[in-house]
Amino acid sequence: MSATGMNRREFIKKTAATGLVLAGTATLAGCGLGSGGESIKWSEEADIVIIGSGFAGLAAALEATEAGAKVKIIEKMPTPGGNSIINGGDMAAAGSKMQAEMGIEDSPELMLEDMLKAGLYLNHPEKVKLVAERSVEALEWVMNYVGTKFVTVNYHGGHSVPRTHQAETGSGGDIVRPMLDKLKEKGIEVETNRKMVRLIQNEEGRVIGVEVLDKYKFGQEDSGTPVFIKAKKAVILAAGGFSQDLQMRMIHDPKLTDKLDSTNHLGATGEVLRAAMKIGAMDVQLDWIQLGPWASPDEKGFGYVPHFCERLVGYAPMINPKTGKRFINETGNRKVRADAILEIGEPVIHVADEYAARKQVIPSSFEGGLRNGSIKQFDTLEQVAEHYNIPLQPFLEEIQRWNSIVEKGQDDDFGCMIFPDAKPMTTGPFYAARLWPKVHHCMGGLVTNTQCQVINQDFEPIKGLYAAGEITGGVHGAVRLGGCAVTDCIVNGRIAGQEAAKEEAWS
Amino acid sequence: MSATGMNRREFIKKTAATGLVLAGTATLAGCGLGSGGESIKWSEEADIVIIGSGFAGLAAALEATEAGAKVKIIEKMPTPGGNSIINGGDMAAAGSKMQAEMGIEDSPELMLEDMLKAGLYLNHPEKVKLVAERSVEALEWVMNYVGTKFVTVNYHGGHSVPRTHQAETGSGGDIVRPMLDKLKEKGIEVETNRKMVRLIQNEEGRVIGVEVLDKYKFGQEDSGTPVFIKAKKAVILAAGGFSQDLQMRMIHDPKLTDKLDSTNHLGATGEVLRAAMKIGAMDVQLDWIQLGPWASPDEKGFGYVPHFCERLVGYAPMINPKTGKRFINETGNRKVRADAILEIGEPVIHVADEYAARKQVIPSSFEGGLRNGSIKQFDTLEQVAEHYNIPLQPFLEEIQRWNSIVEKGQDDDFGCMIFPDAKPMTTGPFYAARLWPKVHHCMGGLVTNTQCQVINQDFEPIKGLYAAGEITGGVHGAVRLGGCAVTDCIVNGRIAGQEAAKEEAWS
Repeated sequence: MSATGMNRREFIKKTAATGLVLAGTATLAGCGLGSGGESIKWSEEADIVIIGSGFAGLAAALEATEAGAKVKIIEKMPTPGGNSIINGGDMAAAGSKMQAEMGIEDSPELMLEDMLKAGLYLNHPEKVKLVAERSVEALEWVMNYVGTKFVTVNYHGGHSVPRTHQAETGSGGDIVRPMLDKLKEKGIEVETNRKMVRLIQNEEGRVIGVEVLDKYKFGQEDSGTPVFIKAKKAVILAAGGFSQDLQMRMIHDPKLTDKLDSTNHLGATGEVLRAAMKIGAMDVQLDWIQLGPWASPDEKGFGYVPHFCERLVGYAPMINPKTGKRFINETGNRKVRADAILEIGEPVIHVADEYAARKQVIPSSFEGGLRNGSIKQFDTLEQVAEHYNIPLQPFLEEIQRWNSIVEKGQDDDFGCMIFPDAKPMTTGPFYAARLWPKVHHCMGGLVTNTQCQVINQDFEPIKGLYAAGEITGGVHGAVRLGGCAVTDCIVNGRIAGQEAAKEEAWS
Repeated sequence: MSATGMNRREFIKKTAATGLVLAGTATLAGCGLGSGGESIKWSEEADIVIIGSGFAGLAAALEATEAGAKVKIIEKMPTPGGNSIINGGDMAAAGSKMQAEMGIEDSPELMLEDMLKAGLYLNHPEKVKLVAERSVEALEWVMNYVGTKFVTVNYHGGHSVPRTHQAETGSGGDIVRPMLDKLKEKGIEVETNRKMVRLIQNEEGRVIGVEVLDKYKFGQEDSGTPVFIKAKKAVILAAGGFSQDLQMRMIHDPKLTDKLDSTNHLGATGEVLRAAMKIGAMDVQLDWIQLGPWASPDEKGFGYVPHFCERLVGYAPMINPKTGKRFINETGNRKVRADAILEIGEPVIHVADEYAARKQVIPSSFEGGLRNGSIKQFDTLEQVAEHYNIPLQPFLEEIQRWNSIVEKGQDDDFGCMIFPDAKPMTTGPFYAARLWPKVHHCMGGLVTNTQCQVINQDFEPIKGLYAAGEITGGVHGAVRLGGCAVTDCIVNGRIAGQEAAKEEAWS
């Protein structure tokens, strides 16, 4: 190989640097078709190896275990749960008993329509249909099988009706933790500090296992020891999105520089998604990366303000501090709102009175925001204007106008949905938070069929490879609606687990 | 392999079906890293193998040949030229002598700004900058080296100024044909009816050649005989976009069903792009697929109307036949216009008087449209309204309004750019054409660096693999402006040829 100017040692160094480690006695088949003479020294095995321990991975693990498969769950971070455990615990389902009890008329057809409309019809029709149709079944599985308690039905922008079922403490942990407990009962613990670096295929292209760095420490990319885990039936990829993967997200959307914070946990990077593409998996719509419009520049990461402000929409107005006026439908979808805020070029102000602020079902986010200073309390609207440097007269007039809109129950200015129990804002105290978008969710990802098999560049399933949750694309199209991530993960995680368990073992 | 239920014969059959042919004596390395024992029986060789014979491929071939490399150009269709030869022959360049002579002030900075704005800032900054900066150099190369004659500078929607230099007969053939002649002088003929089905890598991942189906007949997917062509220096992918690849385009944008025609030649399918992704090339923004807003439902393919109507913008209005009114900035970018037409849900009417219609520099498109019936002639505006079922009174009022806009030289209704020599429409004959969008251009494609090396999923160049033109992504972002495809292809095709020629041969 002297012609290429790279000797064997340099080659090994180079491939190691790219995550393609040629380790010890294991000579690896390349992606696609190897020549057949290779052997891997497996040190562990399972029927199904699941990468990632959020909603989708855990749902897959539970279903696969119920079907009698031996499962391993691999998690690169020191603790399980991924983004799911810091998620807002809102699960969209259309036509639930809880909605009916609250007098909310809804249907899977309406949810499908909402998801397609927000998704700019880029959604893969059969995938989004499945999520809408099975949303209630998934909710009931989380309630009855997992044991999560849901306390009310919330509204998120872009939905036609209140549809997101809020878990008890308003956290995805309310779903993740009992899932982990259930798995523990079955003798399965998430294997943390283990990072998948490569999918291994046999000469036919069937996925037969993974290479993992054992005792990996997140952020220390030279840490960990290579271990080869045989997956007798399948590998399920449930490793989430890449909102924290600066290099990757800036290729797909160069606007998303390091100037933008992310709501995601630090482990939300794209190496597992890219490992699948290295073996020829097809990706779709990776450039649709959602900004959360309800995030605060006055706290790090997800924080408290998103919960607080998402409960205010339909009850309280968002104000452009340059003009003192409203500027967007507060109940519009995330993209509409985030784009409008970015267009203004500085954080906007969500302002509410005590009544609207107390619409919070979960007081912790309100209190947490007050505590860390991202939500502020004021006695008068004049003080609000002074603090945020809002021109006073236009602002006071706009609040008057908002109050008349609330009284009429209809917003002819921006088409905001006004909830029936909304009230005019008249007396203090008032509460306000600044909003500036943060990178929140990757709509795009691997192409999968309705069995959650990963599709290759020949439009065919890659044998032995499944994926579910944020690592996949197609369900949400251009824009994901609030509460639909949990539903996507539970519906497709369960399917992936069930279908993978049906695979015939290859050895 | 009995465990997978697939024996050797089935395996070969299956891989053959997916284009991964195990042919005769050639045992092939898989994608990525093979185990090293494989050998390929090469039957042909060149320094550089170029896939595709449009602007980018031919520019690459000319530059590589000038640099002393031995070149092969592979083309699956029976004739060379791809989409380029049926392209409109408009080449965007900012700050040219011809613009200066016509009194048009322009600069690469302004072109960059226009391309970024239309691209919704999804463009890869360094790639789009390069195209804008080298646009005049590329134009001069086409004029002076290739020998194409440009006759005027046109305007296309979304540009700030007239910037597209029109080739003599208003066809990309004016550029392609002399390029083919020049190559012929150097002893190089495009090898038609040869379809690339696979990129071949060595054990280090370096691209070392291609598998080609010789005597392939387009549309007969079982035709052709496998031939292995060694590429001693590099393979350059210049195979264009996938506007005619129904399965592929519907994965990336499910709205683009078979109900939409395409302006592209039938060979604009995505198998070469996908072959690159099979060996781990990174793709970007494949879901941004452009619809041409100026296409006619009354003729097949590209047709005559696009040329005719793109010369009318800024001189004549587009009318919604349901209302009789204008509905969009006629000089807006392609996406803005196509979306607006689709929103109306039926073809709209571009209507012009004799003066505007004669703004055509190339009369052939006007005459061709009249001949095939896609452009119609009327004595009066009343006849126009009757023919297209437009409500008469609103339509006549709107033409009056348009005339006053033209007189004022400013459009406060939609912001259309009114050209200084535009005149009010008063007397017949009038000409009109129906417009309904057709799938026109794929903005997304392979990720490449400024040397046109193809980037892999580890963000590193794939050794020995280059790409240029519509098969790449990043230059145009969300929306390509008219005339910028030729510039992209010439600038990057030349770079790819120059850079590939510098590679050290691997054998």
